[in-house]
Amino acid sequence: MSLRLSSSHLLDRLNALAAVGAIEGGGCARLALTDEDKAGRDLVVGWMKALGLSVTIDAMGNVTGLRPGRETLAPVMTGSHIDTVRTGGRYDGNYGVLAGLEVVRALNDAKLTTRRPVAVTFFTNEEGARFHPDMMGSLVYAGGLGLNEAHAATDKDGLSVGDELRRIGYLGPAAPGALKPHAFVELHIEQGPILDEEKVQIGVVESVQGISWTEYTVTGVSNHAGTTPMRLRRDAGYLASSVNLFARKLACEMGGDQVATVGEMAFRPNLINVVPNRAVFTVDLRNTDEAKLKAAEARVAAHVAEVAKAERVEVEARVLARFEPVIFDAGLVSRVEHHARALGRSTRRMPSGAGHDAQMMQRLCPTAMIFVPSVAGLSHNVKEHTEAADLIAGAEVLLNLILELAE
Amino acid sequence: MSLRLSSSHLLDRLNALAAVGAIEGGGCARLALTDEDKAGRDLVVGWMKALGLSVTIDAMGNVTGLRPGRETLAPVMTGSHIDTVRTGGRYDGNYGVLAGLEVVRALNDAKLTTRRPVAVTFFTNEEGARFHPDMMGSLVYAGGLGLNEAHAATDKDGLSVGDELRRIGYLGPAAPGALKPHAFVELHIEQGPILDEEKVQIGVVESVQGISWTEYTVTGVSNHAGTTPMRLRRDAGYLASSVNLFARKLACEMGGDQVATVGEMAFRPNLINVVPNRAVFTVDLRNTDEAKLKAAEARVAAHVAEVAKAERVEVEARVLARFEPVIFDAGLVSRVEHHARALGRSTRRMPSGAGHDAQMMQRLCPTAMIFVPSVAGLSHNVKEHTEAADLIAGAEVLLNLILELAE
Repeated sequence: MSLRLSSSHLLDRLNALAAVGAIEGGGCARLALTDEDKAGRDLVVGWMKALGLSVTIDAMGNVTGLRPGRETLAPVMTGSHIDTVRTGGRYDGNYGVLAGLEVVRALNDAKLTTRRPVAVTFFTNEEGARFHPDMMGSLVYAGGLGLNEAHAATDKDGLSVGDELRRIGYLGPAAPGALKPHAFVELHIEQGPILDEEKVQIGVVESVQGISWTEYTVTGVSNHAGTTPMRLRRDAGYLASSVNLFARKLACEMGGDQVATVGEMAFRPNLINVVPNRAVFTVDLRNTDEAKLKAAEARVAAHVAEVAKAERVEVEARVLARFEPVIFDAGLVSRVEHHARALGRSTRRMPSGAGHDAQMMQRLCPTAMIFVPSVAGLSHNVKEHTEAADLIAGAEVLLNLILELAE
Repeated sequence: MSLRLSSSHLLDRLNALAAVGAIEGGGCARLALTDEDKAGRDLVVGWMKALGLSVTIDAMGNVTGLRPGRETLAPVMTGSHIDTVRTGGRYDGNYGVLAGLEVVRALNDAKLTTRRPVAVTFFTNEEGARFHPDMMGSLVYAGGLGLNEAHAATDKDGLSVGDELRRIGYLGPAAPGALKPHAFVELHIEQGPILDEEKVQIGVVESVQGISWTEYTVTGVSNHAGTTPMRLRRDAGYLASSVNLFARKLACEMGGDQVATVGEMAFRPNLINVVPNRAVFTVDLRNTDEAKLKAAEARVAAHVAEVAKAERVEVEARVLARFEPVIFDAGLVSRVEHHARALGRSTRRMPSGAGHDAQMMQRLCPTAMIFVPSVAGLSHNVKEHTEAADLIAGAEVLLNLILELAE
């Protein structure tokens, strides 16, 4: 029995999928449930069928391609997502799904039937760039969010997940989570700089940082920029800017793996000579330690309240997403490490700074993740890149782990 | 001879003009050279003609209604502007123009012909909310900006002043500034809180603050908000927010009449989980003392350079407008004070925090301004308000000053 992964096959498919919704600089824009996402889905579903997988679409638009085993048992599942952010790269999510298909191709070529079925899944709206919360498809799959609630989520234009799923033809008949895996393994680029900086080939992911997303809407008073003395201002933008600086200071003071980001910011009326009467901005806080994450949230909230009082502005806070840190299955994490080392790869145990579908699947079954390096740590960026040798090295660890789990 | 101003006439016309481009809350949106501006212009030109004024439109779209005098001399001119910001009130600019027309009506009713002609003018694009620089029409009128350069200015959609003037039918045949006034007086709401707070009826404006408008474009690196350690970030939005806080601190430290405003702010890609790789924001600095204004500019520039270096981001600065402080004609300023007191009004000498067409006209002829209170100092705001008694009190000062100047 000889199992071979093809680097060129994997790269060809990554390139072909990257051509769908391609944007300047080599990246992709396939926001969840857009026409571009539909085109990407259709392409991958075509590849699944060509590999002989039986394709199931559930009512959340999650798509599973199943390869039967020798016995009717719970399948070993791998996968990730194929939606992207607005300025996304070509590896984030896509790599895990297409490497899963490459594993299936290797099994097919070797005419090898595993004891357990093998499944490759891509989940809907992992990024959360269009609909909140992120990791929506896997969250519903794992039972953490009701289907109706997910369907009711709307984008900035008021379009809903349910309507958009129907429109693009991916509101399927299956009940999300009906197929409960024996184990779930997600292969993903690190999306951070650590493996690249330390020249380590495989990241053995032990946990996922907890995520706290809050949107703040500040209401002040718009007034003439020239005639309003500083002491009389009620500047909504001032509070927004102040929180950005506070978040940076907080994360640096807390240290460890605490990060804080103000990614969205909009002023109204947004005119050069008018004090803003409205500012909308977001705060993204992450930590692997739930107590520390809670402390960070409390300190941001206290800062917001303090500045709001001093500036005499009103603030509404809306939680857009909140996930506790997730600890992956210790046994499975060890097997990732074992197979990477058996293949001669250098390894490093690490948390994931990004959220992933795997963290939802850990609610349902033993789960682990495999990371490969991101050049310069760039991700959510058209320049996102992983070397071909690293891509295939990660896929080999995935293949060997699936073979073990499926036997 | 009995000269009477009609409060109800003036209010009726303010209301009728406010109905053009009306927005929720009682305000107006008549951005320069839009369809709404055209409709407002047509209304006022109709009123000018009904009053028997001979109407001249120049190649900048500045409109003058001339009432002949007994002798062919340079006219006494009053006026202001009728364009508004996006969330403008109904008094800013409009009041000075319509009070000028009310003065003409009083002269007509009294069948009084002054020695010098009397002119009422409204200038194009005073606000600068659509095209930069602001006070464009009066600046060209006073010879401070070439006509071709002004025509070439474009809005955010790439539409030019010249094309938009032609489109709305206000690219007139007259050469801007061909009619050189004997004196110019502008009546305006204060747009600030000082007269209202101190319960003073007439502001005697001695000077206009110098204005410095800069737009900054910051280029950093977009990256994943969860996986990028704080020390590796090159966050364009961080610099933008930092300047907002610095500007506030600077203005408060400098004291006096120094003000500083960050009114425009935009992040890219503007996603909750992506470190911004681009931020565009504006800084508006004003002071009546040119040396202090220059010092403020230098300190903001130094702060930008310092943070740019620490954050490893690139910054481009573009000056959108720069006007030195303007000192009005001392003799004319004294006559404003004289007439206000002769009418029994309380007065206060003060600088103008806002830019006005009068500051451009001071280049051309002796110029002064009359201020009336703005309730709570609100302006560039739909809630902008001045009491009817204050509106008519200001118009009476204007009437008596024009009578004196025109004889």
